[in-house]
Amino acid sequence: MGGKVCAIVGFGPGLGTAYAETFKQAGYDLGLLSRSGADLEGAEPSDISVCAYRCDAGDPESLRGGLSLVQDDLGPIDVVIYNADLAQFGALDEVSELQFEQSWRVSALGLFVTAKLLGSQMSERGSGVIIVSGATAALRGNVWTTTFAPAKSAQRTLANALAKQLGPKGIHVAYLIIDGVIDTEDTRANFAPSEPDEFFIKPARIAETALMLAHQDKSAWTFELDIRPFGEKW
Amino acid sequence: MGGKVCAIVGFGPGLGTAYAETFKQAGYDLGLLSRSGADLEGAEPSDISVCAYRCDAGDPESLRGGLSLVQDDLGPIDVVIYNADLAQFGALDEVSELQFEQSWRVSALGLFVTAKLLGSQMSERGSGVIIVSGATAALRGNVWTTTFAPAKSAQRTLANALAKQLGPKGIHVAYLIIDGVIDTEDTRANFAPSEPDEFFIKPARIAETALMLAHQDKSAWTFELDIRPFGEKW
Amino acid sequence: MGGKVCAIVGFGPGLGTAYAETFKQAGYDLGLLSRSGADLEGAEPSDISVCAYRCDAGDPESLRGGLSLVQDDLGPIDVVIYNADLAQFGALDEVSELQFEQSWRVSALGLFVTAKLLGSQMSERGSGVIIVSGATAALRGNVWTTTFAPAKSAQRTLANALAKQLGPKGIHVAYLIIDGVIDTEDTRANFAPSEPDEFFIKPARIAETALMLAHQDKSAWTFELDIRPFGEKW
Amino acid sequence: MGGKVCAIVGFGPGLGTAYAETFKQAGYDLGLLSRSGADLEGAEPSDISVCAYRCDAGDPESLRGGLSLVQDDLGPIDVVIYNADLAQFGALDEVSELQFEQSWRVSALGLFVTAKLLGSQMSERGSGVIIVSGATAALRGNVWTTTFAPAKSAQRTLANALAKQLGPKGIHVAYLIIDGVIDTEDTRANFAPSEPDEFFIKPARIAETALMLAHQDKSAWTFELDIRPFGEKW
Repeated sequence: MGGKVCAIVGFGPGLGTAYAETFKQAGYDLGLLSRSGADLEGAEPSDISVCAYRCDAGDPESLRGGLSLVQDDLGPIDVVIYNADLAQFGALDEVSELQFEQSWRVSALGLFVTAKLLGSQMSERGSGVIIVSGATAALRGNVWTTTFAPAKSAQRTLANALAKQLGPKGIHVAYLIIDGVIDTEDTRANFAPSEPDEFFIKPARIAETALMLAHQDKSAWTFELDIRPFGEKW
Repeated sequence: MGGKVCAIVGFGPGLGTAYAETFKQAGYDLGLLSRSGADLEGAEPSDISVCAYRCDAGDPESLRGGLSLVQDDLGPIDVVIYNADLAQFGALDEVSELQFEQSWRVSALGLFVTAKLLGSQMSERGSGVIIVSGATAALRGNVWTTTFAPAKSAQRTLANALAKQLGPKGIHVAYLIIDGVIDTEDTRANFAPSEPDEFFIKPARIAETALMLAHQDKSAWTFELDIRPFGEKW
Repeated sequence: MGGKVCAIVGFGPGLGTAYAETFKQAGYDLGLLSRSGADLEGAEPSDISVCAYRCDAGDPESLRGGLSLVQDDLGPIDVVIYNADLAQFGALDEVSELQFEQSWRVSALGLFVTAKLLGSQMSERGSGVIIVSGATAALRGNVWTTTFAPAKSAQRTLANALAKQLGPKGIHVAYLIIDGVIDTEDTRANFAPSEPDEFFIKPARIAETALMLAHQDKSAWTFELDIRPFGEKW
Repeated sequence: MGGKVCAIVGFGPGLGTAYAETFKQAGYDLGLLSRSGADLEGAEPSDISVCAYRCDAGDPESLRGGLSLVQDDLGPIDVVIYNADLAQFGALDEVSELQFEQSWRVSALGLFVTAKLLGSQMSERGSGVIIVSGATAALRGNVWTTTFAPAKSAQRTLANALAKQLGPKGIHVAYLIIDGVIDTEDTRANFAPSEPDEFFIKPARIAETALMLAHQDKSAWTFELDIRPFGEKW
């Protein structure tokens, strides 16, 4: 404790874990927020620099509670990585009004709540970083992204509005357009079981780029970048 | 009655009225949906081809009710123009979580509800038109569009997803990027009181373009176009 | 003669002919410019309202000569439709430096030359229309658009710069993102021989949209719109 | 010699020098190509790991010659940074046909020539990096970018086509959207003499991001990112 604090909203296996490991390695204390309250695998119970919290990013009350606990336990949040998503896919007649709303709550409303809570504190300190795990679906709709594209595009333009508002106050907001399938046990088994290694984006490499963004000098900030595996057809 | 039916969600002064007049002129029966239940000015009470309904586009139950009444009274809806918006502006610390949600409900959720209700009917008939009044804010966030940009971008990528899904079924979905201030009594008085005529977009001209889109041949459909006054700085 | 004048740079079978027929129908005198000097099929030799000229859009001298002849013969040009393209496709190792340059000359330099010649005249008259046949390749590169995408994107951002400069002077510049295969004898035979009717964009329908753009009221101009067949996968 | 080789096309004060210093620091041997044949300031004449060459990026023959000399002197090029630009600005009636062509030759044709020469070699080796200094003008035209926007957008979509073609062969192509004024003696004196420090992008920070891109793991490559100072209004 006493170091810089990184909160990860939407912690979990895959990308969330990669963010956690990469920022821990870089010396950050970690506040991990997830619906399950999962901890970083291999983290010692006595490791007070890694704290896990149960909260629902789609529920403002719950999310505010989680972020406040991080600050109570670890101190002011320097970097927040917004990584929460429902990632539900389907055509218009396959998705429900509830799913449409839930997707938006987790992707967009939760980011709004996070920015409301942390933005003014970061503004007062004159520094802070907000990084969002985005997707190509933020740029356009497609036949199977009836709920996902609207949720992600709302998230992206919110991040864009935040970047323009908070940048001059010293807060760096960045949006990652992740274009491809992230390599996890789940995606290997269920989403793309027969694809070779090179089909997948390694989550640790996304996290490296996120760390680079978190450390960019304020005279040359990046708002948006895309990330995809070299063999991707795009 | 017996002609083609055009429903306008978010009817009101300015653009809503222009849509109504233009499509009435073109022979459509009109179903006008608004929170106030306003009727087309000058419409005879005995004019059964123009029906006004009170409903809230941000409330799915209410919106479904309104659209169903249009169909009960006038028959299947051929063209729906989605023109509902809250158009609230402000920086992060000037807008509330409630406003963020309400903006999204009216702009995006209402369009989803409309498409759910009408999309399958139109698909069965193999024809139909869904036109959405959009804005430049759908493409990017800005310092004063903390709620508006996320709402409009969610609406745009939803429209985009719908266009790709419903196009092959004969339903034309189109999105208007309206870039400028629409000429109404309200905008003249409150938003841009000292601007000359040429500063404003005339709503009747937007409606003309919408009518053209509604009548485009299916071999050459437009999904998206921008509209701005010739003197606009952009 | 004595009516409005429409010049078509890059006249030929398919879209060029459709533009010609549509604008002739709408009462325009036509100046047709092409490398072959082809005339509108069925045009009476005595029809002095249709004039054909041989010129190369990729050669500034030749293009200026052709446009000047149109003005000598028919009077000031009110509408110019820039429809010239090489449409060569190939990967990096399949295309030559010469092709890269020629594509740019025909798509982009020719539009610059046209705007240089006509823009100041139109500005003096306070009116004029410049419509450009564009393509999705203007927005992004792809594996087979090594020469085409750079040529079309240069053309598009030039048109965009022209729209912003000339709009306030009363000149309407518009760019059509044509996304799909145009129905011509050639594309039917060589490009997509086994596709059904609905695969193709009918050129007459593109021309209709162009005519609508040419007649848009200046309070509500469109710079860019996309056009594709309803069944297109995009 | 014997280390990795980085060629910088369009070497000069400001960003070119920053690229050179950053990649030299990272252990690269440098091949510097510029119209003046300028050397890296402070480079010892005996430092055979830094070689300067006189060539014109807008002249294919000259550029091929320069790149070949780099390879003769230093060995195969691992990283090429394409940093050449004319950066001429003006409205339609302020720029000439020659300027329009020259801008394109330096920004777009030179990149094509570079990719032709190096792409196949890099493909054979299965690795290589091509980084392009881009600009916001690549995305849209504006009133003063009549020549610059078409040149940069051609460059960007070419880079995009190259990224899609060469990525699967192990070559990383990346495009930097530099959005702001780079801090150099020249821009301080002539372009923005009264602006505070924070108005400018520090070239060394752009170069850092370029180095990061050059070292990204191939499972998570970035094609495009934007860079601007934190106080920029955008």
